[in-house]
Amino acid sequence: MSYTASVVGGSGFTGGELLRLLDGHPEFELTQATSRSKENKTIGHQHPNLRHSELRFSSPEELASVDVLFAATPHGVSMEQIDRFQDAADTVVDLSADFRLETEAQYEEWYDGHTRPELLADSEYALPELNRENLAGADLIASGGCNATATILGLLPLFEHGVLSGDERIVVDVKVGSSEGGAGGGEASSHPERSGVVRPYAPTGHRHEAEIQQFLGVDVSFTVHAVEMTRGASATCHVFPDGPVSKGDLWGAYRGSYEDEPFVELVAGGGGVYRYPEPKAVAGTNRAEVGFELDPGNKRLVVFSAIDNMMKGSAGQAVHAANVALGIEETAGLEFQGLHPVGAP
Amino acid sequence: MSYTASVVGGSGFTGGELLRLLDGHPEFELTQATSRSKENKTIGHQHPNLRHSELRFSSPEELASVDVLFAATPHGVSMEQIDRFQDAADTVVDLSADFRLETEAQYEEWYDGHTRPELLADSEYALPELNRENLAGADLIASGGCNATATILGLLPLFEHGVLSGDERIVVDVKVGSSEGGAGGGEASSHPERSGVVRPYAPTGHRHEAEIQQFLGVDVSFTVHAVEMTRGASATCHVFPDGPVSKGDLWGAYRGSYEDEPFVELVAGGGGVYRYPEPKAVAGTNRAEVGFELDPGNKRLVVFSAIDNMMKGSAGQAVHAANVALGIEETAGLEFQGLHPVGAP
Amino acid sequence: MSYTASVVGGSGFTGGELLRLLDGHPEFELTQATSRSKENKTIGHQHPNLRHSELRFSSPEELASVDVLFAATPHGVSMEQIDRFQDAADTVVDLSADFRLETEAQYEEWYDGHTRPELLADSEYALPELNRENLAGADLIASGGCNATATILGLLPLFEHGVLSGDERIVVDVKVGSSEGGAGGGEASSHPERSGVVRPYAPTGHRHEAEIQQFLGVDVSFTVHAVEMTRGASATCHVFPDGPVSKGDLWGAYRGSYEDEPFVELVAGGGGVYRYPEPKAVAGTNRAEVGFELDPGNKRLVVFSAIDNMMKGSAGQAVHAANVALGIEETAGLEFQGLHPVGAP
Amino acid sequence: MSYTASVVGGSGFTGGELLRLLDGHPEFELTQATSRSKENKTIGHQHPNLRHSELRFSSPEELASVDVLFAATPHGVSMEQIDRFQDAADTVVDLSADFRLETEAQYEEWYDGHTRPELLADSEYALPELNRENLAGADLIASGGCNATATILGLLPLFEHGVLSGDERIVVDVKVGSSEGGAGGGEASSHPERSGVVRPYAPTGHRHEAEIQQFLGVDVSFTVHAVEMTRGASATCHVFPDGPVSKGDLWGAYRGSYEDEPFVELVAGGGGVYRYPEPKAVAGTNRAEVGFELDPGNKRLVVFSAIDNMMKGSAGQAVHAANVALGIEETAGLEFQGLHPVGAP
Repeated sequence: MSYTASVVGGSGFTGGELLRLLDGHPEFELTQATSRSKENKTIGHQHPNLRHSELRFSSPEELASVDVLFAATPHGVSMEQIDRFQDAADTVVDLSADFRLETEAQYEEWYDGHTRPELLADSEYALPELNRENLAGADLIASGGCNATATILGLLPLFEHGVLSGDERIVVDVKVGSSEGGAGGGEASSHPERSGVVRPYAPTGHRHEAEIQQFLGVDVSFTVHAVEMTRGASATCHVFPDGPVSKGDLWGAYRGSYEDEPFVELVAGGGGVYRYPEPKAVAGTNRAEVGFELDPGNKRLVVFSAIDNMMKGSAGQAVHAANVALGIEETAGLEFQGLHPVGAP
Repeated sequence: MSYTASVVGGSGFTGGELLRLLDGHPEFELTQATSRSKENKTIGHQHPNLRHSELRFSSPEELASVDVLFAATPHGVSMEQIDRFQDAADTVVDLSADFRLETEAQYEEWYDGHTRPELLADSEYALPELNRENLAGADLIASGGCNATATILGLLPLFEHGVLSGDERIVVDVKVGSSEGGAGGGEASSHPERSGVVRPYAPTGHRHEAEIQQFLGVDVSFTVHAVEMTRGASATCHVFPDGPVSKGDLWGAYRGSYEDEPFVELVAGGGGVYRYPEPKAVAGTNRAEVGFELDPGNKRLVVFSAIDNMMKGSAGQAVHAANVALGIEETAGLEFQGLHPVGAP
Repeated sequence: MSYTASVVGGSGFTGGELLRLLDGHPEFELTQATSRSKENKTIGHQHPNLRHSELRFSSPEELASVDVLFAATPHGVSMEQIDRFQDAADTVVDLSADFRLETEAQYEEWYDGHTRPELLADSEYALPELNRENLAGADLIASGGCNATATILGLLPLFEHGVLSGDERIVVDVKVGSSEGGAGGGEASSHPERSGVVRPYAPTGHRHEAEIQQFLGVDVSFTVHAVEMTRGASATCHVFPDGPVSKGDLWGAYRGSYEDEPFVELVAGGGGVYRYPEPKAVAGTNRAEVGFELDPGNKRLVVFSAIDNMMKGSAGQAVHAANVALGIEETAGLEFQGLHPVGAP
Repeated sequence: MSYTASVVGGSGFTGGELLRLLDGHPEFELTQATSRSKENKTIGHQHPNLRHSELRFSSPEELASVDVLFAATPHGVSMEQIDRFQDAADTVVDLSADFRLETEAQYEEWYDGHTRPELLADSEYALPELNRENLAGADLIASGGCNATATILGLLPLFEHGVLSGDERIVVDVKVGSSEGGAGGGEASSHPERSGVVRPYAPTGHRHEAEIQQFLGVDVSFTVHAVEMTRGASATCHVFPDGPVSKGDLWGAYRGSYEDEPFVELVAGGGGVYRYPEPKAVAGTNRAEVGFELDPGNKRLVVFSAIDNMMKGSAGQAVHAANVALGIEETAGLEFQGLHPVGAP
């Protein structure tokens, strides 16, 4: 193993997912996992899939010196701790929203004030399909928001290949699992209240719109619904292009953007049960499924994009970006291909 | 009890729901339930919630003479059998799509050829919120499609009160439960494949668009997703009005249309866990929940509408319409208010 | 309506279920619902199935004078408040464990100390199938524990008809839904952790054993598992009779005990999908399904019993008992027959 | 890669799981997957987690010559085809029940007649924890039944270490997911009917009792329930030892049997949410979780055992056995550790 790695904030859901990925990664040696609330407990005590590990959570007060530090802390913590993180590690990959946006103005439009705005221009967005070249050698990397990631992956080829200009009307209707709410929980997240819902939880004004605007240059009408699953984000993008678009144009755009991408699968109507992207088909994997259908009667293009919010939408994206940053094989540690059949993921 | 009633096609899901409602209805005496495949079995053999009943399925070959016949047969059967149905009953309520549309041209645009097109103009759409006055005394009633019903109830006040004219762009993103697929089942409906999905099953071209177009006079961009529940349909309507719309305008429109409606509840952001419409809150009931939110940045209005597809979207609507047709108290037999908490309904 | 009723502790799950039942009860007028945490909010704010009601939660400090007070408070509250409750109402129905056991010794074996042990002998257990004659006119009624209720209903006929003597070995393996944990919630009850489980949550020593011992006079080996549903309790009783038992003996015993019971349905292998008791078939109802099968090779009798823990296992049992106590029609307010199909209830 | 492998019957659930495992196995090259119904379709058409593969299903009429052939065909097929299988491959691993039992008499007690009874004595049961030494070099291997595997793993240490003699009374109450029913489906397996159940589907007489009897030498009282998950089998064994048993005895026995086993994890009450074995903690893995609790009042020992029925209970066990047979690293191809959190697996 070539690199040492640590996870700050390892008892939460995305922290646990990082621990799982690093534990099985051929190039990383996991040397520290911090958790204030679970200090001294084994990581398997909190994450039952890691019971084979003898690693114990340590205090976040003393950070081990590592090659790569992954921060899975709540929004606002990384900007406060960034100097400590960068002292401890050559490369910092942050999974919060703290360094995703490029300018202070953007940040303050959607979040509260930023305490280290000068770092915004220096951080790199972790999505390799969007930003691979800038990730090589990056030392501060910001893993994208899950709903933004699903949406960007769905729409990116349309912008890269000139199908859309940015002036079009786009509605993005997202369906997400309960892990998006994190491990904390509350009345709305309790099993009896949360199970079986189709619940509008961010009807308008979801912060992930900011990332989409930043990278695609388009305003989207964005609505998020909670549905019955724990993992997964599915974005249905209803797009109204200005002129006619053919199936050939679409296949050209999507193949052009994604045919060499190791983590994007085009799934567009090939028959069988799984004809379009579905989150349960990618649960546990770093894969995104992307597909589309034309609705000529309404001059509409419908794009479907499905990811595991904990993986491609968070921890998997972070590890993928670290692989790129360090020049490791991109798929290293991310080989799991998912299960069939599987229930609510 | 004042009227006799029968159910043709009583072993399927909507047929079973009709049996449940008629069994508990203060004004109807259920005298016949037909099923070819389950002939001579008790209705409780097929529907475990009806085990207390001694009624047995009889052959559809001999129809009892009743006041009201409810037909829960597959699309195409009622148009073939309509003379027999009308010979047997003064009032026929059909739950299939056979008599929902007004003209042969509309029907043939969305379905195959109609064998009795002359009856289309005489049938009445069963949704009282839309068509109450024509239902009184009607003798051929067509219960609406579940997804169309959810959508129409969500948008109707905007048309009734002039907020929309019909030229606006409207995206309707629907999430539905597995009972929409009926009792037959197939590989895609088997539990291991169907459970936990967010599956685009009608990306474009869903036939319920026809009903929406007919009654609201607007083309909608319609996409249906299967999600994890057995009962329920939730329509999220993304609407782009031409001019500015205020919250006051919306409350005026929705209250104006629905404040006296016994089966529509406005649910628009009052705090707590259940701030917007949710199908699980109405499971088993004939209630529709309708709510909305403004998205000024995108000049968008988001409308949420949730129903039980088996009830307000099918059997409940049918019984409600029969109540109206016969001058019975509208809520008779439809008093169940739902459960809290409840899981995936 | 003939009687006034109140619910103390109306914001929890069983409190909400009581409100639902009393709201729809033909003989009770619901005049007060108390909740400290939700004071002044409408009951529909907490329980979305009650949005039609204008009743608001009031403080538990001032209890209205009513005919029947239902207490849905945590264990230990009723014994502290019993004088206030009895001052406010002629009949008190308590849904906690405070008054279920007959002697202080029994109580202290399974719970902490009792502050009003002298009342234990005067309270009546609410299960009419067990205790109907003593409920008539009772003024202090203790609604049974849900898992105990499922078990007692499964085994009672075997004791009433001499199939068992009380010396036999009986294993009771129970599966329950998440509402048993109440509305509070915690990490184990959060949706991502609780969903999809088969989780041993009370491997041994569950307090409901005490009620079973008290009423059946037998010690059972009792284990409870949490499974994926919100409502429901299913008890599988593995019984080893001393001598041979025939199917005829069993039908005789179960029909003898239950053929006139309005809320017990015998379901024992009649073919079709629903051949044995299932909690989802009774969700929302006050019905218990009971069935059995012989395993001659192992000299074993397997008894299945399924209830809705919130209904027959709690609020429904309480209302049934109040009906009996007051001489009202037993099924009044408890007519709902359940849904088919229905998902995880 | 050192060995070639094929899967006969690759379109079903266990066949798909074998394809997944072999596709990712470092020592096996997957050269053929047969399916009559899906001939010429890619394996990813049927199993969406395998979309990256270019392998297509071929006819079972022409079997490729391979080192190891895995047969995932319905019960009865392998005994008919065994000569063809053995002609095609040096090692045959059969996942059906055809070669699990040792004698024709045993087989005929539980199944129909066997057409190749002379092979029963030569086949090796695939469970390495039970039969590792005989698996080395075996050329006909029978993968165990899922419910039998869960039970055997739970009880084995008690027999290996003399805690039980075989005369004790043991009740085994099993809870399983819907994938046990296979990909075919039927009315009881359709999503609306199957979802959310606690359904006794084999109250008595389940065929897996035969395997338990064969390997542990004890008759168990066995009952299987279907619950809401697609993958997973959980066995709760209620055991009544003749004499006193201490926690120390139990830890000694279980550690003695399993401390060097790579795929068995002891989970017995360590605090946190996951204190006992749970199927969702092992979904997708080849791991078994085993734990126990003493109930001194009832002189009972409760043992919990959880596996993924598709993995440790079927395809994973088969690959593990093949690894042992060929002298490959036992964990090769079986490294996936599972997910946290995860929904209904």
